[in-house]
Amino acid sequence: MPVVYPRVARRMADIAPFHVMELLARAQQLAATGRSIIHMEVGEPDFSTAAPIVAAGRQALAEGRTGYTSACGLPALREAIAANYARRHGVDVDPGCIVVTPGASGALLLAAGVLMNPGERCLLADPTYPCNRHFLRFCEGEAVGIPVGADTAFQLTPELVDQHWDAQTRAVMLASPANPTGTLVPPAVMQGIREIVRAHGGALIVDEIYHGLVYDEPAVTALAGGDDVFVVNSFSKYYGMTGWRLGWLVAPPPCVRDVEKLMQNLLIAAPTPAQYAALAAFTPEAEAIFEERRLAFRQRRDFLVPALRAIGFEVPVMPQGAFYVYADASRFTDDSYSFCFRVLEETGVAITPGIDFGEYQAGRYVRFAYTTSLEALQDGVDRLQRFLH
Amino acid sequence: MPVVYPRVARRMADIAPFHVMELLARAQQLAATGRSIIHMEVGEPDFSTAAPIVAAGRQALAEGRTGYTSACGLPALREAIAANYARRHGVDVDPGCIVVTPGASGALLLAAGVLMNPGERCLLADPTYPCNRHFLRFCEGEAVGIPVGADTAFQLTPELVDQHWDAQTRAVMLASPANPTGTLVPPAVMQGIREIVRAHGGALIVDEIYHGLVYDEPAVTALAGGDDVFVVNSFSKYYGMTGWRLGWLVAPPPCVRDVEKLMQNLLIAAPTPAQYAALAAFTPEAEAIFEERRLAFRQRRDFLVPALRAIGFEVPVMPQGAFYVYADASRFTDDSYSFCFRVLEETGVAITPGIDFGEYQAGRYVRFAYTTSLEALQDGVDRLQRFLH
Ligand SMILES: Cc1ncc(COP(=O)(O)O)c(C=O)c1O
Ligand SMILES: Cc1ncc(COP(=O)(O)O)c(C=O)c1O
Repeated sequence: MPVVYPRVARRMADIAPFHVMELLARAQQLAATGRSIIHMEVGEPDFSTAAPIVAAGRQALAEGRTGYTSACGLPALREAIAANYARRHGVDVDPGCIVVTPGASGALLLAAGVLMNPGERCLLADPTYPCNRHFLRFCEGEAVGIPVGADTAFQLTPELVDQHWDAQTRAVMLASPANPTGTLVPPAVMQGIREIVRAHGGALIVDEIYHGLVYDEPAVTALAGGDDVFVVNSFSKYYGMTGWRLGWLVAPPPCVRDVEKLMQNLLIAAPTPAQYAALAAFTPEAEAIFEERRLAFRQRRDFLVPALRAIGFEVPVMPQGAFYVYADASRFTDDSYSFCFRVLEETGVAITPGIDFGEYQAGRYVRFAYTTSLEALQDGVDRLQRFLH
Repeated sequence: MPVVYPRVARRMADIAPFHVMELLARAQQLAATGRSIIHMEVGEPDFSTAAPIVAAGRQALAEGRTGYTSACGLPALREAIAANYARRHGVDVDPGCIVVTPGASGALLLAAGVLMNPGERCLLADPTYPCNRHFLRFCEGEAVGIPVGADTAFQLTPELVDQHWDAQTRAVMLASPANPTGTLVPPAVMQGIREIVRAHGGALIVDEIYHGLVYDEPAVTALAGGDDVFVVNSFSKYYGMTGWRLGWLVAPPPCVRDVEKLMQNLLIAAPTPAQYAALAAFTPEAEAIFEERRLAFRQRRDFLVPALRAIGFEVPVMPQGAFYVYADASRFTDDSYSFCFRVLEETGVAITPGIDFGEYQAGRYVRFAYTTSLEALQDGVDRLQRFLH
C-alpha cells in the first residue's frame, strides 16, 4: 500500500503560527554567528520564578506530590486564590467557582468551549492577543475583531460592542491590561460593556493575566461587578511562573459544573507540583519579590516609552500595565513584518510585528516588550536610533 | 440590571462527567466517617514518581528552568523520546515529528483538532477511554462507538472498521493496551486496520499510553508500520508521572506544522520542570524502577483475574496490559452503576461502572483497577466474596 497522509481539518487554514517565531528563528541564526541580539519580542518576564515558589515546588516534589489532583485543582489553592481576591480587591469570590488550569491558555480554551456554538461570534479588540482568535476557531466559533485605536485606548467600548452585536453574537472578550497595548479597561467602560452584554443575554470573558503588573493605578477585577463573568488569570506573568503552566478561570456559578466537565475530560487537571508551588505565591516573601519586579518593569516602561517617542515611534497612549509598548512605526514603514526583519538584520533588535495581533493598522504597528534589562533596552534604543536616523 | 447567566454551548449536553466521580465523592464521605475504603477505581499508579525523575525535577527548579519552552518541547526531550523508540522498538522516529504535550490528554486534543471537521466521524471501540468521545465532540467531530466484545478482545478489527466507514468518516482511534480492558491490538490487526484506513484516505490515531505496562509479550508501536499515523503517548502511566502533565504526540510529517500551530496557540508549551524531569526517565536507574513496578502490576493482575473469576465475575479475555480488569458482572446485575454504589456502601470497595466507558453492555460490566497493593486487592476480593455470596 502507498503511504497516504491524512488531510487536515479546515480550521487549520485559519489558525496562524506566530509570525514572530520566524523572526525568532532568524534571531537565533544570527546569534549563532556571534551577533549580539537584544530580545524585545519576548512575552514573558526575564526574571525566573521567585525563590519561595521554587522552594515550595521542590518541597512538594520531595514529598512525592506527583499524582493527579482533582479536576478543579487543589482545594487549598482555590481557597488561596479566593482569599487573594478578598485581600487585594475586596471582592468575595467563591473558591468553588475557581477552576485551576494549565495557564490562562487552558482557561481561555475552557471558556471558549463552554460558550461557543459553531458559527457563533465573539467580539474582541483588534489588536488582541493572537491566540484568542484561535481558541474560538478551535471549537468552531468565530472571532470578530473590532478595529480599535488610540481614541479608545485600544479597547472596546459599550458603543462598539452594541454596534457590532448581531444575532450570531454570543460573547465579548476583553483583556485588562491588554496584550499588545498594555492599556486598561476603565471600570466605567467595563460596567458599560457588561450591561450591554447582559442586555443581549451574552457572556463576558475578561482576561486579567496582567493584573498586578500595573504602574499607575490598581487594576479593578471584573469580578467586582458581579459573578456573571468569566475571569481568566494566570500565575505566568505577575507571579513569574510561565513554564509551570498554571492559571485559573473564575466561572459564573451556573457554569462551573460545565467548566469542570471540560477540564476533567480535556486536560484531567493542572500540573500538581505547580499547584503546590503556587501556594507560596501568596506569602509576604513572595509578594515582596513581585513588588520589586513590578517596580523594575515600571522603571523600564518609564524609560522606554519616551525613548521610543524621541526616535520617531508614536506611542499614542501610555501603557498602564503588562510589559508591552505598542508603537506606531508609520514614520518608517507600512509593512511592519518586513520592517521587523530589517531591524533585526541591521541592528540585532528583535521586536514583534503588528500582524501577529490582528489586521487593523497592523502594518503600521510593532510591539516592544520590556522583558529585558534597562541596559539592554537602552542599547536597543541606541541601535534603533542609529539605524533609523 | 438583573444578573443574567450565560447559556452554555450545545456540546456541553454531550460531554459527560465521569460517573465514577460521584462514587468517589461517596467513598470520601464514607472514609470521613471512619469506614475503610479499598480503591480499585483509580486510573493512576499507586507509586509516586521514581526518585531519579523527582531528583531531576528538583534540580531543574534549583537551576531556574521555569520559563516557557518552545511549543514542541525541549529538543533534548524530543531526541530522548526518539532514541527510546530506536532502542526499545527498533523504530526510527524523527524527533522533529514528536510534539511534547500536557499528557496524552493534550496529544489527543491536538490530534482531534488537527483532523476533525464539524460533523465528521471518528470510529472507536465501545467500551473506550471516556474522554476520547469528548475530545472529538469538543471540536465538533462525532465519535462513533462500535460495539466490541470478548470475541475481538474488545478491540476494533479491519472488518469492523470497513463495515462502519461511511462518507463522513475521517479517522479511527485505537488504544493498545486499552482502557478499560487492558487488551492489545495484535500487530496483524493493526496492520489490517491501517490498510483499510489508508484505502479510505482517513487518519489513524493510536493511543499507546499503556505501552511498557504489558505482561505477556512486548507491545508493538504503530510507528513500526510507518509514519502515517498519529501516535499518542504519555509519561503518566509507565513512567509514573501523572500529576506532572507530560505526554507526546508523534505526528505524520506533513501534519507536524499544524500540530505545532495548535500547541503554540492553545497551550503554549508543556510544563518545563516536567520536561527536564522526564529526561531522567530514560536512564538505567529509572528503568530499573519501572521494571520493578511492572512486575508488581503483573503479580497483581495474576492474582486478581483468577480471584475475580472465582467469585463469579467473568473475565472473558486475559488483560495483557495497563492496570485494569474489565469484568462481566451479569451474574450479579444488569445495572452496573447502582451495583457499584451498592458494593461501595456494603463493602467499602470502590470500582468503576461500565457506563463510564460507553453504552454497549455497559450495564453488565465493571472495571477493577489494580492500582493498589496486593494486600488491599486480597482484602477487596474477600469483602466482595462475603457480600456476593
Ligand atoms: C493576554 C494573554 N492572555 C493569555 C496568555 C497565556 O498565558 P499563560 O497560558 O502562560 O497563562 C498570554 C501569554 O502571553 C497573554 O499575553
Ligand atoms: C487510554 C488513556 N489515554 C489517555 C489518558 C490520559 O492520560 P494523561 O493525560 O495523564 O497522559 C488516559 C488516562 O487515564 C488513558 O487511560
